[in-house]
Amino acid sequence: MAKELVFGHQNPDTDAIVAAKAYAYLMNQLGYDTEAVALGEPNGETSYALDHFKAQAPRVITTAKNEVDAVMLVDHNEPQQSVADIAELNVTHVVDHHRIHDFNTSDPLYYRAEPLGCTSTILRKMFIEHDVEIPAQLAGLMLSAIISDTLLLKSPTTTEQDKTAVVALAKIADVDYETYGLEMLKAGTNLDDKSAAELIDLDAKSFTMNGHEVRVAQVNTVDIADVLKREADLRAAITEENAAKGYNLFVLLITNILNSDSEVLALGDDDSKAAVEKAFNVKLADEKANLPGVVSRKKQVVPPLTEAFN
Amino acid sequence: MAKELVFGHQNPDTDAIVAAKAYAYLMNQLGYDTEAVALGEPNGETSYALDHFKAQAPRVITTAKNEVDAVMLVDHNEPQQSVADIAELNVTHVVDHHRIHDFNTSDPLYYRAEPLGCTSTILRKMFIEHDVEIPAQLAGLMLSAIISDTLLLKSPTTTEQDKTAVVALAKIADVDYETYGLEMLKAGTNLDDKSAAELIDLDAKSFTMNGHEVRVAQVNTVDIADVLKREADLRAAITEENAAKGYNLFVLLITNILNSDSEVLALGDDDSKAAVEKAFNVKLADEKANLPGVVSRKKQVVPPLTEAFN
Repeated sequence: MAKELVFGHQNPDTDAIVAAKAYAYLMNQLGYDTEAVALGEPNGETSYALDHFKAQAPRVITTAKNEVDAVMLVDHNEPQQSVADIAELNVTHVVDHHRIHDFNTSDPLYYRAEPLGCTSTILRKMFIEHDVEIPAQLAGLMLSAIISDTLLLKSPTTTEQDKTAVVALAKIADVDYETYGLEMLKAGTNLDDKSAAELIDLDAKSFTMNGHEVRVAQVNTVDIADVLKREADLRAAITEENAAKGYNLFVLLITNILNSDSEVLALGDDDSKAAVEKAFNVKLADEKANLPGVVSRKKQVVPPLTEAFN
Repeated sequence: MAKELVFGHQNPDTDAIVAAKAYAYLMNQLGYDTEAVALGEPNGETSYALDHFKAQAPRVITTAKNEVDAVMLVDHNEPQQSVADIAELNVTHVVDHHRIHDFNTSDPLYYRAEPLGCTSTILRKMFIEHDVEIPAQLAGLMLSAIISDTLLLKSPTTTEQDKTAVVALAKIADVDYETYGLEMLKAGTNLDDKSAAELIDLDAKSFTMNGHEVRVAQVNTVDIADVLKREADLRAAITEENAAKGYNLFVLLITNILNSDSEVLALGDDDSKAAVEKAFNVKLADEKANLPGVVSRKKQVVPPLTEAFN
């Protein structure tokens, strides 16, 4: 069987890195020849998790066709979030927890999506279905991914299955998930050493919404005001990014992980900003608005924004 | 929980009808409120299976939004194969074994596809995963669907998992699957009471291939020459259909279920007919060609034809 690469989305978060490692491990146990790789370096939060469980970061790739013909995607399916040469590759497997969009194949494939908080929650079920044991180190990483995606089980994307998985994985990894989880999330909010350009690209994804190119970035913090001290720099970086990449709209979500509120900064053309106002039923003031309780890009930002553009 | 409808593709074959019944049964056992419906009347083969296991045909619908807001799809995902008002509905679940194409959602959903011979093979695994027993009647129908899709385990789409499922389901249904299967397949080849227009629509699916609208129909027979006695009528019906529906290409596959060979009749514009020649590496003579060993639209027709159009 020819080797396949397994990877998550660009600007990888903890789930994108960990799900690739977990799925590659599972598939290799099942007789496939796979390697987990990543489409970027781990962020601060992911590095904390990898260090804590003494695990290696996956090798970073920018193209895949030079190495393999076929790939497996985790934690994404939309082509613009994937490897640059995705159109030339045969996607044989997908495990994901997002909407399906612009994902077309010419052949049948394995596709497993569930509307759960985290890809790693689905993967834990797949380990059980295939009767493959999850090693303690991997359990710690998968636990970290679920904590990351669900903001310690507080995001509205959180399901009972995510909670069950966290408890079970914490037991295998032998950690107190609440203490560990808060430390890990805080490690991801240390943004002082990032430039404004790095900050708006740290956890950012592109979407096509009714012909509009939309970029939705999110930064986690324990103090929104602290991030907004750099508002002028952030605006300049976003304006530059919109011009360079041709985005109609850039939405920056600054999320307080302690109280689950977000401030949104929306820069783009007038139509797109009107869509933001419609999506969240708010009036932007100076292109900003407070969005109480909004923490999930996937569940609370992308669907209403897609709807507003349609 | 609001009621949802569960259905397979237009021009339903046995798997489209049965998978809807099986998935609706499973989901109701899991606490959902669903009803299996169909986008057309059962064909001769499906009627034989329903009669044999004393089961009811699902109610036929043409639109769904007048009844429900959300639906579950089985055995298809492409919008042009689905219910007429699919764009207005929220798809919450898909269980399928085809390529993914033009299928876009704004929300995360449950999507389970596997490259197996039949949707019912996947569904059997899901019953096992959820520890739900398959009643004998349903087992007989699911067995029929797998026999239908795999031409009694002889199609190249057949996997080890399909074989395992057939043996297990035949045991629950208490039938000799080889004897029963051949009778069921033969029941589907009785085409004498069908008009040419009905015949080319019996098991037909639409595809968009690089901007070309392509219709691929298949009829099973035990004697290809017998079907070709009606060639003039078939040509007239296809030509009329191409004009009425704006198809660039209509491919009719006449498949001998006894020896697994097919004759293809391809009517359409010159570019499209050139794509057919390229796809199968044949020269069309009088717009026809013999395709030895070709029995699977999904695995042996759609992928090479898609490739040839790209």
